[in-house]
Amino acid sequence: MNTAACDAISSARRTHARSAGPTRLQREQKQATRERLLKAAENVFSTTSYAAASVEEIIANACVGRTSFYRHFDSKWSIASALCEQVMPEVWALWEELARLGHPSEKEIADWLRHRIAVYGRHRALFTVMKEAVAIEANGFDAIERMHVGVIEVLAKGIAAFALAMQDSTAGREARVMASLLLMQLDEFNYRLAVHGWDVDFDVAVLMMARQIRQFIERTC
Amino acid sequence: MNTAACDAISSARRTHARSAGPTRLQREQKQATRERLLKAAENVFSTTSYAAASVEEIIANACVGRTSFYRHFDSKWSIASALCEQVMPEVWALWEELARLGHPSEKEIADWLRHRIAVYGRHRALFTVMKEAVAIEANGFDAIERMHVGVIEVLAKGIAAFALAMQDSTAGREARVMASLLLMQLDEFNYRLAVHGWDVDFDVAVLMMARQIRQFIERTC
Repeated sequence: MNTAACDAISSARRTHARSAGPTRLQREQKQATRERLLKAAENVFSTTSYAAASVEEIIANACVGRTSFYRHFDSKWSIASALCEQVMPEVWALWEELARLGHPSEKEIADWLRHRIAVYGRHRALFTVMKEAVAIEANGFDAIERMHVGVIEVLAKGIAAFALAMQDSTAGREARVMASLLLMQLDEFNYRLAVHGWDVDFDVAVLMMARQIRQFIERTC
Repeated sequence: MNTAACDAISSARRTHARSAGPTRLQREQKQATRERLLKAAENVFSTTSYAAASVEEIIANACVGRTSFYRHFDSKWSIASALCEQVMPEVWALWEELARLGHPSEKEIADWLRHRIAVYGRHRALFTVMKEAVAIEANGFDAIERMHVGVIEVLAKGIAAFALAMQDSTAGREARVMASLLLMQLDEFNYRLAVHGWDVDFDVAVLMMARQIRQFIERTC
């Protein structure tokens, strides 16, 4: 942004200093800065691992000041999470898609897995960063836990075995653990096939994972 | 080590400079340096995450020179792997124990899982470091892959389903993927219960994981 533009903004800010909230221009500029920071984080993470990347690098890449960064995010983890948020609608749509299948055949689950692998493959760089971030950050584990709870809730809308996993009974507690074990497996399966490149027969791997999911679904039907 | 001791060593080194190999003293000193470095790495990793720890910190903690470090290890990953090697006999003994069970009941598998969780719990700090290292390092994934191949080989000695997983046939390839999926799940299960602290009913979790293992074993019996 050139100096004139900056001047215009500060002048606008001064003019409206006593009004109740931020002006439209202020809101727009705030949003633009946020987007610039997200784009910068994406750039940095595409060349540097999450562990090696720093907030300073992201700030430099975005050409904004430190204060601007901390007005929007409180850490590297927080900006990485925000990047992740951008693809979450796609991720949740996938779970909704599985829930709608209700009582799917092995083939239907396999097709869903292929679709999911394709979506994750399109966001390979981001999921690599998130896998690393989750392993390093103290609250990474809890983020995954919360995600799994949310996934079970979505799947419970269409699939009886996941609905059972939400019940407070012996069978419910058992199903909840089984669902968690299944989701851990699915996370790793998906990461290996979509992101990392697993040296395995793709079709066999998809079929076996589909069988695992179907077994869980069948168990309580 | 004091200066006199250092002098003694260099003098011994000079005296034997033309002999075929290192003297006993040189070998002992080399071994002592290696152990000092490993202890230092353990200290550093107990207070600093793997990502944040540096070779420089380990060198400083060990009070040795840079050259000494690189005579023994070529990176942070290599010294972390060497630390891990120290507990590998215990880890492999666990797999041998499961292999010897041959055709175990759910209860026998559950008891084995409890034992395994206790072993990993004793080395909590080390396994935390390795979990992080594997996620960050470029060759972390391959290390896990090789480990899983080794585990399948050990289990194949006593358990038919794992022996099938080593065969080059359609059923063999399917069993191999299923075995990998099971080991991924078991890694995560174990890490959560032994190292991280998973908010779950311990006995239910152990029983469900035992059921998963037994299901894989039964499938091909």
